[in-house]
Amino acid sequence: MTSRTSLPHIGELQAGPRNSISDVPGVCVGHHTLDDGAVQTGVTVVRPHGGNPYLDRVPAGCVVLNGFGKSIGLMQIEELGVLETPIAFTNTFSVGAVATAQIRQCVEANPQCGRGMNTVNPLVFECNDAYLNDIQRMAVTEPHYLQAWAGAGEEVGEGSLGAGRGMSMFGYKGGIGTASRMAPIGRGSGYRVGAMVLSNFGRLPQLLLAGHAVGARLARRMRNNAAPVSTEPEKGSIIALIATDAPLDARQLRRLALRAGAGLARTGSVFGHGSGDIALAFSTAYTVPQQPSRAMPAIAMVHDALIDPLFQAAADATEQAILHVLLQARTVTGFGGHQRLGFTEAFPEWREFLTTE
Amino acid sequence: MTSRTSLPHIGELQAGPRNSISDVPGVCVGHHTLDDGAVQTGVTVVRPHGGNPYLDRVPAGCVVLNGFGKSIGLMQIEELGVLETPIAFTNTFSVGAVATAQIRQCVEANPQCGRGMNTVNPLVFECNDAYLNDIQRMAVTEPHYLQAWAGAGEEVGEGSLGAGRGMSMFGYKGGIGTASRMAPIGRGSGYRVGAMVLSNFGRLPQLLLAGHAVGARLARRMRNNAAPVSTEPEKGSIIALIATDAPLDARQLRRLALRAGAGLARTGSVFGHGSGDIALAFSTAYTVPQQPSRAMPAIAMVHDALIDPLFQAAADATEQAILHVLLQARTVTGFGGHQRLGFTEAFPEWREFLTTE
Amino acid sequence: MTSRTSLPHIGELQAGPRNSISDVPGVCVGHHTLDDGAVQTGVTVVRPHGGNPYLDRVPAGCVVLNGFGKSIGLMQIEELGVLETPIAFTNTFSVGAVATAQIRQCVEANPQCGRGMNTVNPLVFECNDAYLNDIQRMAVTEPHYLQAWAGAGEEVGEGSLGAGRGMSMFGYKGGIGTASRMAPIGRGSGYRVGAMVLSNFGRLPQLLLAGHAVGARLARRMRNNAAPVSTEPEKGSIIALIATDAPLDARQLRRLALRAGAGLARTGSVFGHGSGDIALAFSTAYTVPQQPSRAMPAIAMVHDALIDPLFQAAADATEQAILHVLLQARTVTGFGGHQRLGFTEAFPEWREFLTTE
Amino acid sequence: MTSRTSLPHIGELQAGPRNSISDVPGVCVGHHTLDDGAVQTGVTVVRPHGGNPYLDRVPAGCVVLNGFGKSIGLMQIEELGVLETPIAFTNTFSVGAVATAQIRQCVEANPQCGRGMNTVNPLVFECNDAYLNDIQRMAVTEPHYLQAWAGAGEEVGEGSLGAGRGMSMFGYKGGIGTASRMAPIGRGSGYRVGAMVLSNFGRLPQLLLAGHAVGARLARRMRNNAAPVSTEPEKGSIIALIATDAPLDARQLRRLALRAGAGLARTGSVFGHGSGDIALAFSTAYTVPQQPSRAMPAIAMVHDALIDPLFQAAADATEQAILHVLLQARTVTGFGGHQRLGFTEAFPEWREFLTTE
Repeated sequence: MTSRTSLPHIGELQAGPRNSISDVPGVCVGHHTLDDGAVQTGVTVVRPHGGNPYLDRVPAGCVVLNGFGKSIGLMQIEELGVLETPIAFTNTFSVGAVATAQIRQCVEANPQCGRGMNTVNPLVFECNDAYLNDIQRMAVTEPHYLQAWAGAGEEVGEGSLGAGRGMSMFGYKGGIGTASRMAPIGRGSGYRVGAMVLSNFGRLPQLLLAGHAVGARLARRMRNNAAPVSTEPEKGSIIALIATDAPLDARQLRRLALRAGAGLARTGSVFGHGSGDIALAFSTAYTVPQQPSRAMPAIAMVHDALIDPLFQAAADATEQAILHVLLQARTVTGFGGHQRLGFTEAFPEWREFLTTE
Repeated sequence: MTSRTSLPHIGELQAGPRNSISDVPGVCVGHHTLDDGAVQTGVTVVRPHGGNPYLDRVPAGCVVLNGFGKSIGLMQIEELGVLETPIAFTNTFSVGAVATAQIRQCVEANPQCGRGMNTVNPLVFECNDAYLNDIQRMAVTEPHYLQAWAGAGEEVGEGSLGAGRGMSMFGYKGGIGTASRMAPIGRGSGYRVGAMVLSNFGRLPQLLLAGHAVGARLARRMRNNAAPVSTEPEKGSIIALIATDAPLDARQLRRLALRAGAGLARTGSVFGHGSGDIALAFSTAYTVPQQPSRAMPAIAMVHDALIDPLFQAAADATEQAILHVLLQARTVTGFGGHQRLGFTEAFPEWREFLTTE
Repeated sequence: MTSRTSLPHIGELQAGPRNSISDVPGVCVGHHTLDDGAVQTGVTVVRPHGGNPYLDRVPAGCVVLNGFGKSIGLMQIEELGVLETPIAFTNTFSVGAVATAQIRQCVEANPQCGRGMNTVNPLVFECNDAYLNDIQRMAVTEPHYLQAWAGAGEEVGEGSLGAGRGMSMFGYKGGIGTASRMAPIGRGSGYRVGAMVLSNFGRLPQLLLAGHAVGARLARRMRNNAAPVSTEPEKGSIIALIATDAPLDARQLRRLALRAGAGLARTGSVFGHGSGDIALAFSTAYTVPQQPSRAMPAIAMVHDALIDPLFQAAADATEQAILHVLLQARTVTGFGGHQRLGFTEAFPEWREFLTTE
Repeated sequence: MTSRTSLPHIGELQAGPRNSISDVPGVCVGHHTLDDGAVQTGVTVVRPHGGNPYLDRVPAGCVVLNGFGKSIGLMQIEELGVLETPIAFTNTFSVGAVATAQIRQCVEANPQCGRGMNTVNPLVFECNDAYLNDIQRMAVTEPHYLQAWAGAGEEVGEGSLGAGRGMSMFGYKGGIGTASRMAPIGRGSGYRVGAMVLSNFGRLPQLLLAGHAVGARLARRMRNNAAPVSTEPEKGSIIALIATDAPLDARQLRRLALRAGAGLARTGSVFGHGSGDIALAFSTAYTVPQQPSRAMPAIAMVHDALIDPLFQAAADATEQAILHVLLQARTVTGFGGHQRLGFTEAFPEWREFLTTE
């Protein structure tokens, strides 16, 4: 795997210590990967904090750039502005199983959930990995979610693992990627903004790599060599998750989430018809209690007029995270013998494309 | 059960022959009811037409009046303006199981679904029946969905059956209700508008019955008799489904769905915080092919300036359907010995409340 | 004019001392009325507080129930969640003049507005008074806005004055109405919720008066007497403004605004196609500084689980305010000799309709 | 002025004959420019077709990327999915005057407007030109709108004219730009997609020029030379207008409009807090009659599964149009002696930046 520090750096802002969503204190990520012949899929879980997310809910906002997707849980987040579970990612046909796993986990930790207390709102994002994974087999089961959850930590693996196992992007291997930026506002070195993506989108001719029209160049070269360039319409998707320790309310977090779309567009996406492009942002600066008997937080939010560095950070971290997927994911062979090459394996000379043609 | 024809008629428009959502030609409804001690729940399925809803998609629009809910499938409907499965209803913790059942059913009927063709967007609505039903047991399984689907027909049962089995409203028994109205525009006797609700909302003092403040009167009487009136915050929800044979596009169907909210408000709802209040409308006037190789419909939609009778019909049919639930649902005893009385059983003299105090 | 205290009281909550939007401390209302033959129109202004609304912005949220309307200013409120001008109301063709007046007033009070500081977001609502008013004459000018503003006070006139001068409802005279409710949460006697409406909607057969189907009854009676009942499609609109002293953020205020729609529906509205039905809610519990150099408020908002009494209050106050218009507005004759009778003038026996038929 | 054909070409799709929004047949653009010392502003008008836009309404959809803006008219377009006036652009403080001009023009052409027929929905977009223009003077008047309208033609001027006269971008001169792309679907050479922007956004370090981080490079160079780089927060905005001859309904046109955001992001925008970023798309493939007595169109829309080339075209044409502004606009000096240099005047060697650093 290419050393991350040798990859191009997007934008002018500094990365956090890990250049990862876990640079936002308390945020942990876990993966469970299924790698068994035609089954190439998995689950990824992001825990917003180490406590009980049902009782101590983090504020959140989301934006649907293109709603060709089957995620569950966004409607309630739009209404109430809080998360109440970890954030789960899996393949399209496994949303039901993972949502059920989240409910069961919440009930176990909170026996009054759905009795004296409210039910819980599962939150599961998905992308379609059916090219590499036999998605009709619905191989993901509830224990897989629990294993991903149990393994969550500050080291965020990237590439073909967890929910990213069977994903594709720009005709090559996709998957999980992460990055972070320091936004120079507020106290000390500023607030942190982390991004994690489940990347499964794009046709090769669209690919922009750190601004360079690498995809168009490669596609031309391949056509000249009589190599086929897939022209089938996108059936992908990308989910971008943004975390920050800046105190923002739900309205502001929806605004922050939208800026992931700017980072995404800079990699060549035009939010294709068949791509479910969704972004969700949450803040760890405070929590909202499930029970009204507990006091509501009395927090001064960031003034909107100062928010631009956070917007820039969200866009840059998202573009960087997508770049990390492309340049880190390794070749996977799966269902029906389908294969997606890792981009850097297919083009070991990839750095040459970062020059002007 | 009270004869439906003896119940108050809401509004000036005429009901269809069955006063049911199945007055819209092709629309069928099926229920599967679980009635076993602490398990009082079920599944209800509405089929928009008799064909393959994945290949021949009906146009649809939806509106979230209050997003405290856990339904799945709305995001894609908002983006694409079409349904591609039957519409399913169940309890809050069974959305995952029913969504998985819908996927499996679609794959069976369309083996290329998720392979050469797109994945499918399950559509499952839910309300929380945890007072009467041991919701933590997650008793609904995939075969229950299939049984509800297989039993779908033009006779729409009402009250405590299917997904409505464990539901409550205004402190009494809730469940399934339906009604229809003829909208005097277009050809002949006009277009038809049908409503079906899964009704699980409201606190007694709010109840308006055909405009009369029956709930407030009853609550006062009970307090005078030292009978307890539940004052706990609502944890209910109501889903309103509107069908029509009028040719409307997705934008217009979203408008139509919103008018269900007017009917709902006239029963006393203020779209309570804890109530997931959602409406979805679909048209059977045409279908949109899944595959772009098939021709798109070339249909003249209803001019917006003529749409008011449809709006009135949607509001009136929704209010009527809610009234049908209240006056048809019979007493159910379930989880923990909890009991919800049928309203007409609790107040056999209910017609007297329809006079002025 | 009928004594307000003798009118039906909607719902179970208590009214505030004035039963007016000005029961929310600091809120003032002013009208300027043009009553000159074919010119029957005006301007109404609501000031959220006595200070400088550009520097000290009140939080706000809005909802568009039916967007057939020409208001200006909502987009920025949806994005930023704050008002920065008084709230103005006028006729459809005068939005431009009043918006310009708001800008000029803001610039005068804040000479850096549009120079060193941001421009200002005018907020002007409108309804179409073209039946009684020669709207093409565009009679409202900038000074009229200033006069309405200068005359703002705690006494809120009702009926055919200000922007309400030329409005119609249910075929009778419409205009301005207001009401309030005490929501029993929080400190002492609870929070206050005030509503003010500019009411210009409805066809007679739809009218519900305190729940009674008075309109349908009247329409039948008129038809029996061979009197004409207007059946022309609605070209009206209603704007509902909700004020509260409860600490709510923009997300919660949007939720509160939506509940005005429940009150509106209970008067018979189905949010008709041609009616621009818009609600906006603001809170006076805190302000958001224009300048980021000033400290942001650190306020504990109302927990969403406790918000239902505010929702009930918003719905009830809105219905009550609409009732106040209908029962207070006096006959006006205007453009082309058109006349709208005051409802209580046309039906002095109106109280008899509040019995069951 | 640099020859347009010598400028970088964005993307793989071919431009239309004029590389302009007027490549969509029937679309015309007119400007009226005020250039008088401290007054540097104007009006731009786009006519969707040569007929009466109030009677023959074109379908339209819009999207608000960042709602820090004061445009008028979007609410009704979102509800009804049609335009009914030309599309006007001006400065922030002149929206009222231009909206009034649109109403007056419509009334003149349609004397029943606001009498027997509906009122009209003005549509005016704005950006803040207060750096170069004495915006407080409100110099734009109704005749200026009419002059812009009367001068509309197929030749679309670019740069510092019309509404673009006083605009700035990336610290240099902004204004009007246009471009087009051919989308290879449908009949013959495909459908046409044109973009026109009013560009007034961006801070220099963000600027991406055809993917190259030119702004960051320039900012570094200027800092090394001790030249000041403006770091003040953005108070700009950008409006992107997309026209197409593809048959799309309002839902699809909203989707198309969103893709302008992808093109915008590729120039470095992160949809800054202070920038009102709005896109509107309309189709000329059919019209919707104002009067319901006329027949509704019966048109087969483009299947969503085939829509991607249109999305790509909208994104690419928008990026190209922004590039055209930057590389065409000439230096303007205005209010308070403020000056914005034309980018190519400030950096005649600008092509050198298109190499890798």
